[in-house]
Amino acid sequence: MQKKFDLLSLGEILLRLSPPRNERMSRGSEFDKKVGGAELNVVSGVAQLGLRTGMISKVPAHDMGQFAKNRIRFVGVSDDLLLYDEGKDARLGIYYYENGAYPRKPKICYDRQNTSMLQIQADEWPDEMYSLTKCFHTTGITLALSQNCRRAAIDMIKRFKEQGTLISFDVNFRSNLWTGDEARDCIVEILPYVDVFFCSEDTARLTFNKTGDITNILKSFADEYDIGVIAATQRIVHTPKIHTFGSLMYEKSSGNFYREEPYRNIDVVDRIGSGDAYISGALYGLLKYDMDCEKALEFGDACGAIKNTIPGDMQASTSEEVEAIIASHKNVGRDFEMVR
Amino acid sequence: MQKKFDLLSLGEILLRLSPPRNERMSRGSEFDKKVGGAELNVVSGVAQLGLRTGMISKVPAHDMGQFAKNRIRFVGVSDDLLLYDEGKDARLGIYYYENGAYPRKPKICYDRQNTSMLQIQADEWPDEMYSLTKCFHTTGITLALSQNCRRAAIDMIKRFKEQGTLISFDVNFRSNLWTGDEARDCIVEILPYVDVFFCSEDTARLTFNKTGDITNILKSFADEYDIGVIAATQRIVHTPKIHTFGSLMYEKSSGNFYREEPYRNIDVVDRIGSGDAYISGALYGLLKYDMDCEKALEFGDACGAIKNTIPGDMQASTSEEVEAIIASHKNVGRDFEMVR
Amino acid sequence: MQKKFDLLSLGEILLRLSPPRNERMSRGSEFDKKVGGAELNVVSGVAQLGLRTGMISKVPAHDMGQFAKNRIRFVGVSDDLLLYDEGKDARLGIYYYENGAYPRKPKICYDRQNTSMLQIQADEWPDEMYSLTKCFHTTGITLALSQNCRRAAIDMIKRFKEQGTLISFDVNFRSNLWTGDEARDCIVEILPYVDVFFCSEDTARLTFNKTGDITNILKSFADEYDIGVIAATQRIVHTPKIHTFGSLMYEKSSGNFYREEPYRNIDVVDRIGSGDAYISGALYGLLKYDMDCEKALEFGDACGAIKNTIPGDMQASTSEEVEAIIASHKNVGRDFEMVR
Amino acid sequence: MQKKFDLLSLGEILLRLSPPRNERMSRGSEFDKKVGGAELNVVSGVAQLGLRTGMISKVPAHDMGQFAKNRIRFVGVSDDLLLYDEGKDARLGIYYYENGAYPRKPKICYDRQNTSMLQIQADEWPDEMYSLTKCFHTTGITLALSQNCRRAAIDMIKRFKEQGTLISFDVNFRSNLWTGDEARDCIVEILPYVDVFFCSEDTARLTFNKTGDITNILKSFADEYDIGVIAATQRIVHTPKIHTFGSLMYEKSSGNFYREEPYRNIDVVDRIGSGDAYISGALYGLLKYDMDCEKALEFGDACGAIKNTIPGDMQASTSEEVEAIIASHKNVGRDFEMVR
Amino acid sequence: MQKKFDLLSLGEILLRLSPPRNERMSRGSEFDKKVGGAELNVVSGVAQLGLRTGMISKVPAHDMGQFAKNRIRFVGVSDDLLLYDEGKDARLGIYYYENGAYPRKPKICYDRQNTSMLQIQADEWPDEMYSLTKCFHTTGITLALSQNCRRAAIDMIKRFKEQGTLISFDVNFRSNLWTGDEARDCIVEILPYVDVFFCSEDTARLTFNKTGDITNILKSFADEYDIGVIAATQRIVHTPKIHTFGSLMYEKSSGNFYREEPYRNIDVVDRIGSGDAYISGALYGLLKYDMDCEKALEFGDACGAIKNTIPGDMQASTSEEVEAIIASHKNVGRDFEMVR
Amino acid sequence: MQKKFDLLSLGEILLRLSPPRNERMSRGSEFDKKVGGAELNVVSGVAQLGLRTGMISKVPAHDMGQFAKNRIRFVGVSDDLLLYDEGKDARLGIYYYENGAYPRKPKICYDRQNTSMLQIQADEWPDEMYSLTKCFHTTGITLALSQNCRRAAIDMIKRFKEQGTLISFDVNFRSNLWTGDEARDCIVEILPYVDVFFCSEDTARLTFNKTGDITNILKSFADEYDIGVIAATQRIVHTPKIHTFGSLMYEKSSGNFYREEPYRNIDVVDRIGSGDAYISGALYGLLKYDMDCEKALEFGDACGAIKNTIPGDMQASTSEEVEAIIASHKNVGRDFEMVR
Repeated sequence: MQKKFDLLSLGEILLRLSPPRNERMSRGSEFDKKVGGAELNVVSGVAQLGLRTGMISKVPAHDMGQFAKNRIRFVGVSDDLLLYDEGKDARLGIYYYENGAYPRKPKICYDRQNTSMLQIQADEWPDEMYSLTKCFHTTGITLALSQNCRRAAIDMIKRFKEQGTLISFDVNFRSNLWTGDEARDCIVEILPYVDVFFCSEDTARLTFNKTGDITNILKSFADEYDIGVIAATQRIVHTPKIHTFGSLMYEKSSGNFYREEPYRNIDVVDRIGSGDAYISGALYGLLKYDMDCEKALEFGDACGAIKNTIPGDMQASTSEEVEAIIASHKNVGRDFEMVR
Repeated sequence: MQKKFDLLSLGEILLRLSPPRNERMSRGSEFDKKVGGAELNVVSGVAQLGLRTGMISKVPAHDMGQFAKNRIRFVGVSDDLLLYDEGKDARLGIYYYENGAYPRKPKICYDRQNTSMLQIQADEWPDEMYSLTKCFHTTGITLALSQNCRRAAIDMIKRFKEQGTLISFDVNFRSNLWTGDEARDCIVEILPYVDVFFCSEDTARLTFNKTGDITNILKSFADEYDIGVIAATQRIVHTPKIHTFGSLMYEKSSGNFYREEPYRNIDVVDRIGSGDAYISGALYGLLKYDMDCEKALEFGDACGAIKNTIPGDMQASTSEEVEAIIASHKNVGRDFEMVR
Repeated sequence: MQKKFDLLSLGEILLRLSPPRNERMSRGSEFDKKVGGAELNVVSGVAQLGLRTGMISKVPAHDMGQFAKNRIRFVGVSDDLLLYDEGKDARLGIYYYENGAYPRKPKICYDRQNTSMLQIQADEWPDEMYSLTKCFHTTGITLALSQNCRRAAIDMIKRFKEQGTLISFDVNFRSNLWTGDEARDCIVEILPYVDVFFCSEDTARLTFNKTGDITNILKSFADEYDIGVIAATQRIVHTPKIHTFGSLMYEKSSGNFYREEPYRNIDVVDRIGSGDAYISGALYGLLKYDMDCEKALEFGDACGAIKNTIPGDMQASTSEEVEAIIASHKNVGRDFEMVR
Repeated sequence: MQKKFDLLSLGEILLRLSPPRNERMSRGSEFDKKVGGAELNVVSGVAQLGLRTGMISKVPAHDMGQFAKNRIRFVGVSDDLLLYDEGKDARLGIYYYENGAYPRKPKICYDRQNTSMLQIQADEWPDEMYSLTKCFHTTGITLALSQNCRRAAIDMIKRFKEQGTLISFDVNFRSNLWTGDEARDCIVEILPYVDVFFCSEDTARLTFNKTGDITNILKSFADEYDIGVIAATQRIVHTPKIHTFGSLMYEKSSGNFYREEPYRNIDVVDRIGSGDAYISGALYGLLKYDMDCEKALEFGDACGAIKNTIPGDMQASTSEEVEAIIASHKNVGRDFEMVR
Repeated sequence: MQKKFDLLSLGEILLRLSPPRNERMSRGSEFDKKVGGAELNVVSGVAQLGLRTGMISKVPAHDMGQFAKNRIRFVGVSDDLLLYDEGKDARLGIYYYENGAYPRKPKICYDRQNTSMLQIQADEWPDEMYSLTKCFHTTGITLALSQNCRRAAIDMIKRFKEQGTLISFDVNFRSNLWTGDEARDCIVEILPYVDVFFCSEDTARLTFNKTGDITNILKSFADEYDIGVIAATQRIVHTPKIHTFGSLMYEKSSGNFYREEPYRNIDVVDRIGSGDAYISGALYGLLKYDMDCEKALEFGDACGAIKNTIPGDMQASTSEEVEAIIASHKNVGRDFEMVR
Repeated sequence: MQKKFDLLSLGEILLRLSPPRNERMSRGSEFDKKVGGAELNVVSGVAQLGLRTGMISKVPAHDMGQFAKNRIRFVGVSDDLLLYDEGKDARLGIYYYENGAYPRKPKICYDRQNTSMLQIQADEWPDEMYSLTKCFHTTGITLALSQNCRRAAIDMIKRFKEQGTLISFDVNFRSNLWTGDEARDCIVEILPYVDVFFCSEDTARLTFNKTGDITNILKSFADEYDIGVIAATQRIVHTPKIHTFGSLMYEKSSGNFYREEPYRNIDVVDRIGSGDAYISGALYGLLKYDMDCEKALEFGDACGAIKNTIPGDMQASTSEEVEAIIASHKNVGRDFEMVR
């Protein structure tokens, strides 16, 4: 039976305000006005690639919530499961972001306390939701936002799982939202439900106390929690404007590790969301190609790399474009310079 | 003895985010980034006119607080009495504003809960502050923001008054911050300390239950609370882009009422802050010209009128420019078209 | 039974390129980049008001078609029925628009030949489409674009009608697309299928050779073709920046005419699409309130008036906002100045 | 014999720097960058209308002079007679301009001392120049700039006149460049060479001590100095954004006065250069239509009125557009709203 | 005898629309509005360097054609030979361009069918044209646009040649306009008329089936068709933002090959038109310095390299600036950092 | 006793006009509008780092001078010692700046003759000024501007020195303002008063005829003129967008040389003012840390490096930010990527 959605995700939607070009937060007279959020970035990326996705979230009913809704729709994501907070103090969380340039680093300033999202409860969404999608994705950020968010997220994971939905989870540890200990204690409870797991090597070591090389780490998660696919991105930050990006993926059923030559010396225009774009590519590969990890890795690496070249939080490439970039990446002979 | 400042004011500083031109909050990809706030608007107006002013307020220590500080300095106001909140959740309040065009009205969306300002206590500022200024100004907005703000404001009013400082107060009633009853109960407590009082006719009637015509109302406040100067602005909103603006002022000592032909059919570019600009002109007139109410009225009306033609919350005219506009306003013969 | 859509519309989507502010097409170095089109303007207006709408159209598969799709989604319209032209010469039609200022008139320069839309055939869309909506709307522009468009439009009108769909039609006569005789001959063929008909007084006289006053004209259409609701907007162009806007509506079943005081001296920011916005308001009133012509007229007039204050082709107000403006318009006492 | 040019003009070219929209010179972070100058405005207007014009001037050889040259060419004027100052201190004069909005007036701040233009000498241009054009135009501004400019201008007037060139002169009195006495003493010397004379009523009265009504004034100039055509514009400044504009013209040969209904309530976008645009229309009418004063008046009034609606110093309408606006202006019946 | 022009060129002028900075075509709300075209890029480059050039082309008479004319003049090119299409469907071709950033490539989307240019006939231009210029240049793009363009181009080549004009031709093969076989068959017919020939190594091999190294290829063209000067640019695309650029040139009369150290690691701001800028430098060198190939190569390499650093299609450097860059390029000792 | 200021500086304030992004001075329609000046850049940098600074200068009283004042305040510098020129020809100097991109170099075009600053006299400032500050800084530019500036600067150096003020001097040789011989003869006169001396290696060799390696040069200045601290920056310009930046500092009292690993491959956004930023860091280090040369070098190198990444002339980092960058620079292990 055909599901209505390929992917649904639960997460907060933030207003992102950035001074244009290389201007600083503390100066200038304009902000670029965008929206973002780890989970939204993932579903928008998958939508751009051609699958049907939707966002489970809550925004204020007022104009700034409408702006969030409009933007979500613009990037191809369904707003059917968006709730609106009619409360007098309803608010959309904000983050301010300024670009870096070596030796000055990029900078984020958060203003995301007391937002409409923080009060959500799972039962605000209809029961039918749980049978609508092939895959459900959320992240550690949602778990960390508030007790309500945590309860709702865990509840949803369990209920989606019951319906046979593939569960995807990204640790995305943020030390300004919770401690490593809190994160680990919470996440290990949900790992038994997780089918696709994304965790950086650093977090695996520092938060989950994993040791050994990265292959051991991925394998140990899979074995310990019976997780089907585990991936870790590998980024080298040469300067704020030059990164190298790749990943490692482990498939439990086959015991295979997948990796490829990373994308080297990427021209970074906007680094935010490139990890989320990786996940969007990986989930697209898995969902579109029947859990094919090689496809997942290739799409993940390419989407992660490309996102760095795009302003804003979100991937903005169709599957045709990503496939062309994958082909160039693998190409060893003559390559064309421009898409005409 | 010469005071360091002519005017100090206590109030919150807000980040103001507006879509450029006639774009809407719920659309577009840019915000104009400014700061404002009823009390800041008053002191910046007085500073532009040439007196020495300072702002008593608290902003986050992070970059957005630095932006507020930089802008305050840009408009000629001293930041000596600005405090910085180093807290992890320190935040600068925000308001979103979009322009109107008949029949669509201008629109404001507030996001000013839980800001750094709301936790202030009077004793965070040094005792010396109370002897630094000739005049102290605050508004009902500050009283309404939080219990802490209210206590601090009342405390400061009393302590400044003890030092012989002229006390100026603007009711500036905002129904989204408190009820009329709360406002009245609180304000009548401080009216005995007030020397210069600004109250709109509507608020006088609805909140203070005053009756009779506007001259009776002003006189009754003066008599009841022994207030030296009382003024009420009179605005006719023909359309969001065309207003008429004038005022009435009452001087208790002489029993005189002051009024003049209003500024008719003002080209409104940005209406926000024009009431505050009126107060800046009135206080400038009083402080510069030894409590001369005629000067106060002329400067008040002109500043209020001009502010409508300036983008952003704040008056931006020198005393020379305002005087030239007053002269044109009074002029009955031939007038020049352009300042060369 | 609940239909998936309240309104579907068939029409061409155009890229609109305008020099910002008062700059001219023949100068300057920037274009504002928007999309529009008579039918899209109607469905986006109805979507903003809260009903479920979709666009039946064809755009190029390349990036500019993707842009059109993204914008359609941004304004709340479904892209489920959008087709993509993969052809090498696929193109999106364009119109260039510059604002006027008295005595200089606004100016449009069309570049809409040979577009992907012009080759459509009705059978490119699935049969199920005809049972998905409560109402179908199209305009004379679609009939005039090409023989293919005309055949497809007439075919769709008939097939939707067979399914009991309400048929809405706007003459929207454009002399640069066809002659008055061509228009009349074509349109009288489809009028028997039409339930809601929009026609300007000028077109009624010049193209349909109607005579008498406007009430006679509306009634005669209704009688001759058995049309349930007929409306004509009434616009006075004082200057390119000041219009007066109202309408007259006739309900055949009751024999009633509906009219109200027009919106006078509207601050025109962008006049394009205000007629379409009128239709969006009227259709919203009819569809939401069970064919209530009074509601239709009020929403139509308000939406038409408000659209003039919004940049771009499309209405951008929620039903709450429109209702507040209707209330202000009817209000005879004190009115508030700003939405806070 | 066909001349190469219809019109040549001698004058200074200035860089014009304006804060965008309603921002002030003393604030903001951007300037619109344009060029202007009374004489350039005239020749560019005539060029837009379709005649062949050129500019006699001197600019720095460096990049800012190149910018001036590029812009001159952009507006259709020949740069063949532009000279370049290679000197180390070569400079392009500047004026800063900010828009007004009632009750705030527009404002100009000049920085035009010591520019490359001020050192010109007539013999820097080739002798052939004097036989290249049907008409030569200059203004009192050029006479006032420096002794060098004055000598060069007078010299050129005489040499062009010798070649049978029509001489056009605009008083354009600027009290910040010279006194009324200086102006009168200088100008009366050149009036005997002048064929077409532009002088405002104010200047005629205050500088030339003319009395009587405006018709007497124009006639007295014509009689006293044997001038063929004399015109005075008549502007009413209702507010900085609303003007009324018309003129009166006198033809000596016939003794006829020409006038028409003025353009009332013009939407003023940028007032600068509208007087120059009037002259461009008038000269176009005279040169194109064999000294037909009625044409000159109609084109003059229309160009002057339209220029007010265009950003920057210069007229930007073709003769077709101006003719359409003249037709609308004269039209008493139904008029179209938009140019499609 | 002095010719009026140093260089005339026949080619289409396109409107170029690009999202600013790194934005994508399918997103954003602005376009940078420029004009370009292979042949225009060449003549504008030569004009910037100081020679007299003109463009033979046809544009719509409407405002967008006026824009093209204005821009052509801005870049120093004569519009004397520009024709205007008054037809109702007259159109200016468009191309959309977005920047790349590794690993995302730059992207072009063409909309250039059915333009006014495609219907040209050689006899629309006056016979005198053929004696006005020292050199005539066109490209394979013009040959490929339409049968009319091809006939007109070939006709002009022959007629200019008859007048002793130097004929310059650039293959500029575009596979989206014609096939390699079509291109070869057409071009070999005109090569006997060509004096200066530009062909990339790839095209020489793939389209003209040339073999051997690049020196053999250039020599074989010269020998086979008796061509005086042949050049091929050599570009290495390290990333979309870093290129290396140089060339090889062959002079038949001397049998000499010319080459120099390429410009390595150019900071690419906008790559479009750099090949055309090379040709502009090469033709400038040949025309200015009496067919001196060494000068041609140095100016060609420098102009090609510099163009990459300039936004838009066209070179924007004077000969002084290019000479300074050539001197720096050849310099082996200490170099200055900035032009003051 | 606590001084009011840590640092005062005498110098000219210039308006800086730059085309945005990579546009050229000779094209485009916008300028970014900023202020700068070697001495202002130093005091603003020190103010951003947290010390109290003020600017001794003269600007026009008109709006452009007000703009300069507003910007000075915005960057945290006191305007208490700013004088205003009320003269009719008062002017603010200007420089035009465009960015480079390899192989095109950045370019400056000066328009700074006849400015209000050039007429200053030391006695325009009050005598009290000389006891207000711990340190006074000026540069060779001020000495070179005019005879008045030179006399005023030398006078101030002597009078500040008499009050025990630390004297800082930067040679900043500009060959377009004076010759090397003039510079040397003037500067050696004031070196006996100087405590902290900044001189580039090039200038030391070419202007002061120093020989030997850079350590010898610094030491010889210190010995010859009894200067406490001497520093020379060392910049390698790889391309206009990539520089390497470091310095060498000599402390006479200890005989120690200070240096560290330079900042390599800096992402240059705007190179202007980076030398001044170095001085601001060095003076901050000396003034804040009791003449600690190691701190001075670290802050100097970091501020100089960071400035290159910031648009405009002025450093824009707090001491916290600079300290974090110093820590990253010294760090040899794992480093964080972003400031959250």
